Amino acid sequence: MSSPNTSAAPAASETDRSVIPDIVIGRLPVYLRTLKLLADEGSQVTSSQELATRLGISSAQIRKDLSHFGEFGKQGTGYNIVYLHRQLEKILHVDRVWSVALVGAGYLGHALAQYNGFESRGFRIVLAFDQDPEKVGNRIGDMVVEHADHIYARVRECGCRIAIIAVPATAGQSVADQLIEAGVTSILSYAPITLQVPQHVRVQYIDPVIHFQHMTYYLE
Amino acid sequence: MSSPNTSAAPAASETDRSVIPDIVIGRLPVYLRTLKLLADEGSQVTSSQELATRLGISSAQIRKDLSHFGEFGKQGTGYNIVYLHRQLEKILHVDRVWSVALVGAGYLGHALAQYNGFESRGFRIVLAFDQDPEKVGNRIGDMVVEHADHIYARVRECGCRIAIIAVPATAGQSVADQLIEAGVTSILSYAPITLQVPQHVRVQYIDPVIHFQHMTYYLE
Repeated sequence: MSSPNTSAAPAASETDRSVIPDIVIGRLPVYLRTLKLLADEGSQVTSSQELATRLGISSAQIRKDLSHFGEFGKQGTGYNIVYLHRQLEKILHVDRVWSVALVGAGYLGHALAQYNGFESRGFRIVLAFDQDPEKVGNRIGDMVVEHADHIYARVRECGCRIAIIAVPATAGQSVADQLIEAGVTSILSYAPITLQVPQHVRVQYIDPVIHFQHMTYYLE
Repeated sequence: MSSPNTSAAPAASETDRSVIPDIVIGRLPVYLRTLKLLADEGSQVTSSQELATRLGISSAQIRKDLSHFGEFGKQGTGYNIVYLHRQLEKILHVDRVWSVALVGAGYLGHALAQYNGFESRGFRIVLAFDQDPEKVGNRIGDMVVEHADHIYARVRECGCRIAIIAVPATAGQSVADQLIEAGVTSILSYAPITLQVPQHVRVQYIDPVIHFQHMTYYLE
């Protein structure tokens, strides 16, 4: 990199990760996505003001968030997009590709398995499971659906630490238990229940109704 | 209601909605979902402590969040679940059923259209669109897929103020523009781009990679 904006940033590993608020971490992937979009549009440099306008977050907040991890831009010259993108990838550990296990091969599982936006952003679904014998053996994305009875053995074998739960609410907890037993520590759940998990496991939820209800508060 | 815990709560309309932080509003649907789960399990009374354990939020935070809207429980007696559930439904305006337009009839659209957890929580998908002529006319859930050219006319006709965008990133902005033109003010978008919308429009995003990347920060 020949950018003048790259020299002052310390390596991400020098940062004490435990002191940075989780809500800040939650915004970094959004910055990363926006930088990718700007790069795709042909931009080479951006500013906290431009990011703020795109994202509806204040530019001060963006500068403060990024300052936890180093000095990525100079006053008046802005951020080198490729450089900042690469640094955020390193900070978020997506400068590699993580193997992901998918449980649930219904419409949602198919949508996830065929989505081609995972790999460029650090993730590849490598295993797919369902408990329905009619679905086992079918193709889903690039995979073949395996029986849910094999979750433990196959997830251990592949060493997946990340999984997606795309099953009905009633099956969610049992699937989570099996995944965690097999070594998964990060779960993205589409099942509309709050999972009970050990403290070392992180769960993120996707429940469209939660988002709808957040918006209807402001309607009428 | 004969519960002793119901008398002191003011009507939600007495609350000045503009002063309550949006992050608090974002938690109310999670409380609502948890109360529903507790009711389904046969419980009649709960406490901020029980909710805290279920949700991984502090009980003080839960009490503070709810206190914005009134006094829902008495020290030592807890919350009447049915009553608190009903009050939160009113506060979030989901004591009715909202008509929702769905754009995108791929696997994701099918998953959403067949999901049977919307109506009991305040939403019914009543329109489905796609621009692919091969999909137009097909059944999706209880509906027939209509051509995306009819978004403006049909959304106006039905008076939908809420819509789901389940199309590829490249089509997202154009679909959003048409929906907003037709009167939609609340959008749930699965397209992995940040939409540019007028100030009166609210957008919530569902992008699984954002959640993955939030979790990989803590891995290794």
